[in-house]
Amino acid sequence: MNTHRHRQPLVVIAALLFAIVAGVSHAQTDPPAITDEEYETATQLYFDRCAGCHGALRAGATGPDLFPERLAEKGEGYVEAIIYGGLPGGMPSMGAHGILTMEEIDVMARFLLNDPPAPAQISLDQILETWQVHVAPEDRPTEPQHDLDWENFVGVILRDMGQVAIVDGTTHELVNLVDTGYAIHILRSSASGRYFNAIGRDGKASLIDLWSNPPEVVAEVKPCYDARSIESSKFEGYEDRYTIVGCYWPALAVILDGQTLEPIKMIGTAGYQRGGGDYVEEARVAAIVASHFYPEWIVNIKEAGQTWFVDYSRLNEPGQPLPITMLDTDLYLHDGGWAGDRYFVVAANSLNKLMVIDAEERTLAAEVIAGEIPHPGRGANWVHPEFGPVWATGNLGSQEMTVMGADPEGHPEHAWQVVARVEVPFTGNLFLKTHENSPWVFYDSPMSPSPAGSVTVCAIDKVALETERCWEVPGAAELGARVVHPEFTRGGTEVWLSVWGSMNTPSFIVVYDAVTLEEIDRIEGDWVRTPTGKFNVYNTANDVY
Amino acid sequence: MNTHRHRQPLVVIAALLFAIVAGVSHAQTDPPAITDEEYETATQLYFDRCAGCHGALRAGATGPDLFPERLAEKGEGYVEAIIYGGLPGGMPSMGAHGILTMEEIDVMARFLLNDPPAPAQISLDQILETWQVHVAPEDRPTEPQHDLDWENFVGVILRDMGQVAIVDGTTHELVNLVDTGYAIHILRSSASGRYFNAIGRDGKASLIDLWSNPPEVVAEVKPCYDARSIESSKFEGYEDRYTIVGCYWPALAVILDGQTLEPIKMIGTAGYQRGGGDYVEEARVAAIVASHFYPEWIVNIKEAGQTWFVDYSRLNEPGQPLPITMLDTDLYLHDGGWAGDRYFVVAANSLNKLMVIDAEERTLAAEVIAGEIPHPGRGANWVHPEFGPVWATGNLGSQEMTVMGADPEGHPEHAWQVVARVEVPFTGNLFLKTHENSPWVFYDSPMSPSPAGSVTVCAIDKVALETERCWEVPGAAELGARVVHPEFTRGGTEVWLSVWGSMNTPSFIVVYDAVTLEEIDRIEGDWVRTPTGKFNVYNTANDVY
Repeated sequence: MNTHRHRQPLVVIAALLFAIVAGVSHAQTDPPAITDEEYETATQLYFDRCAGCHGALRAGATGPDLFPERLAEKGEGYVEAIIYGGLPGGMPSMGAHGILTMEEIDVMARFLLNDPPAPAQISLDQILETWQVHVAPEDRPTEPQHDLDWENFVGVILRDMGQVAIVDGTTHELVNLVDTGYAIHILRSSASGRYFNAIGRDGKASLIDLWSNPPEVVAEVKPCYDARSIESSKFEGYEDRYTIVGCYWPALAVILDGQTLEPIKMIGTAGYQRGGGDYVEEARVAAIVASHFYPEWIVNIKEAGQTWFVDYSRLNEPGQPLPITMLDTDLYLHDGGWAGDRYFVVAANSLNKLMVIDAEERTLAAEVIAGEIPHPGRGANWVHPEFGPVWATGNLGSQEMTVMGADPEGHPEHAWQVVARVEVPFTGNLFLKTHENSPWVFYDSPMSPSPAGSVTVCAIDKVALETERCWEVPGAAELGARVVHPEFTRGGTEVWLSVWGSMNTPSFIVVYDAVTLEEIDRIEGDWVRTPTGKFNVYNTANDVY
Repeated sequence: MNTHRHRQPLVVIAALLFAIVAGVSHAQTDPPAITDEEYETATQLYFDRCAGCHGALRAGATGPDLFPERLAEKGEGYVEAIIYGGLPGGMPSMGAHGILTMEEIDVMARFLLNDPPAPAQISLDQILETWQVHVAPEDRPTEPQHDLDWENFVGVILRDMGQVAIVDGTTHELVNLVDTGYAIHILRSSASGRYFNAIGRDGKASLIDLWSNPPEVVAEVKPCYDARSIESSKFEGYEDRYTIVGCYWPALAVILDGQTLEPIKMIGTAGYQRGGGDYVEEARVAAIVASHFYPEWIVNIKEAGQTWFVDYSRLNEPGQPLPITMLDTDLYLHDGGWAGDRYFVVAANSLNKLMVIDAEERTLAAEVIAGEIPHPGRGANWVHPEFGPVWATGNLGSQEMTVMGADPEGHPEHAWQVVARVEVPFTGNLFLKTHENSPWVFYDSPMSPSPAGSVTVCAIDKVALETERCWEVPGAAELGARVVHPEFTRGGTEVWLSVWGSMNTPSFIVVYDAVTLEEIDRIEGDWVRTPTGKFNVYNTANDVY
């Protein structure tokens, strides 16, 4: 038994304080010993818990690099302490919040002081081995097999359960639980809305047919080891025909048949930052949206600081090319959404920038400075009486909702200018959402370091551009949960928020009236564990936000 | 002193024979010892002599992989023997031909049985450090500073001298010797013809101004460590404006300012074979040509089996994109040229295929099976009385010039069909060339294993489609030289061939009458050492071949 394994938190904190106060650098020449088994365990833990911010290669991105050369200067005790307690800049307290055990922290610290493993590449043959069609397209129904209003279904990610719940947006009843990849990052509706495309952080894509009774996974494939984005083809004539998966590792995007998820094309994304700079092997694919102007997807390459327009019009035709138009944007691209019909706004979050992309011209129309670490999700659109059409983002790092003019033709004087920086009470925002039938922008703060902040939701007045009201969701704090991801039902009458707790205890989804802000309902049940993102079919298929 | 170092060739050959006859596998568990200094020496030798075929990563391409896992089964003696004596499939006899010393062979064998070095990547900053403008564009003359017929200049690569000789095609006099990168692979004329762009195997690009008196290098840059191709922008309105370098390592293409060679864009080429297959980190850039249909280059990615159309119309305009249209072709792309005005033909040499690319539609128009290992250079175009416009390639591995119909509109029944396989007396062809004013295709065979073949040139009848006459270039065999690369002067009256000898002894360039085949002249001088490729300004700028 390793004596480290039962070291108590207090000891770790003491070590950290000692290291900081004394300025002691525990320089190590030889890396600490680690068994093959521990190394393998740590590799998986790292992949699940750390790679998102620090990169599969440990080369850094949102978080700093975790190469042993740098960490060795800090020493093993310091590394353990940081893993345990987190850091103000965004590093979560893995020990204090019970995400990692003390044993796991010990193994992880030694892992980080040893050389990183060389992560595997992937080939088409390997992807094909993971491809399964459970119901062939010709065996699928030609009309819905139930009488439910499937366009008002809400797909709810049950993050740590490896499941997606299909919930009826009209009745609030659970329609079905479907097994998917691990820790689904997003659901995207196909153009027709009939299918949900789910992508797991483990790289598994699942195609869910909402016309089945009950809705079920009809095809799946695992085109990578780590992924965050998926999108369907939406240009007229190509509805539901193709699907693209954006991978975090390996660095690639994979185009799939939209009906079967059969892999068709692999597009490597490793390259040079902004078309001329340092080489980035780990150039990860962040947000993807389907263009309405051309048969193409807008694909954001995070560490490359480039946005690629990937044309899918000639796939599968022998001898025809795949055109990719590469636009330099900035670092590090994360998420974004449509501002009006024509402009796609993506956050370059390490520079606090919003990059405004003209999807018709395939050009960069503007750069706007948001708050600290903008995290728009898809953002929020509405028409302001003075400024005309506007678009807003939340910010992870500052108490600000940033609102900018988004109508260069009708309101050129405000276009891509910040028209308001609305103060909110907490940092730690992940998502905001609005609907034309609601006077409010709903705004979460699940990453707030304050326990009160992490269970608070705010309603922001779309005309006054002020925070109207913020409240803690009753019962959420008691569950040690975080309140996350406002989503409207079809028609915008209700807004739902997830109470994201531990997988060991059921939590709930709270439903508010989108106008009066009154609580209408709580969606509860033993199945409601670790709910996070929620996606209404109609709103998702039609880019309503 | 290492006893291996003075091992004699006979001993090596005996070891090889023993290994083959006895079927003995010298399996080794530990790699042989090698000092840091030896490893460094071998790394450089490998890069200069082996990487071209076996890849900078030793992962194989034209030659097999050279990973220690595979070679260890063969044993050190076997490896030394192969390096010394070569193999029939194309591996040169490095020892027997005096390319490597016995000491070097010993070091190389031990190097190959150890893990390969991780080759360095490159950044824009590193490239900028190598960039030098010797004469700024505004300081250059606005008209030629000499009375020579510069459009009939011939740039002669002096391969092992790191020089290019500018020779007057009219008088046969040396105009100037200019220092360039090591082992220049090709010269390409800018659209106006005023500049030669030279690219060295060491990755150095040099811009030579033919209007200076004497012609001189006015700018240089080293965008990579290993390169093979360079091309200028030639679309109307973009003449002489941009230059692109195709690198072998790192895997990228770099776009430069055409007047100063300032680096503008870096395009990574690592990716997936044919858009869906294995990942190739070492996806090298083979032949590049400028399109006449669009402001773009046609860039062949060897190991990826893809041909990219790289649009240069919006470079340097902020917020504008770089469109790249990716066409799947096949493995491994090498060299090629225009068949008529519209079609670009590139060899996929490991499959003995010619890929016919429609540059107007950006599609793959046809695949044609050539001889063994087609090596077209730029190929040869003429109009045949029966078959109409045809295009021909030589083949490295078979005694055949392959001729195919190249006029889908006027002669559809012959288009992209082989109309003749003309027998030639030797394998080992590298280049063939013709001109509308000559009745012959001139055809070399410098890689012939036969000493007679390597100094022979053939004239092939363009109408009869038969080899009319082959002859040994007098004096070449005595120099231990190879006869290589026929090139016409402007107007097609003369054809020049290089007598490629050792750098220690001057050789010569032989000049023939392009109609009568009589020897007209020999271009001689102390400077004529290791002449290889020759590029007439007018013919190169105007794609006359």
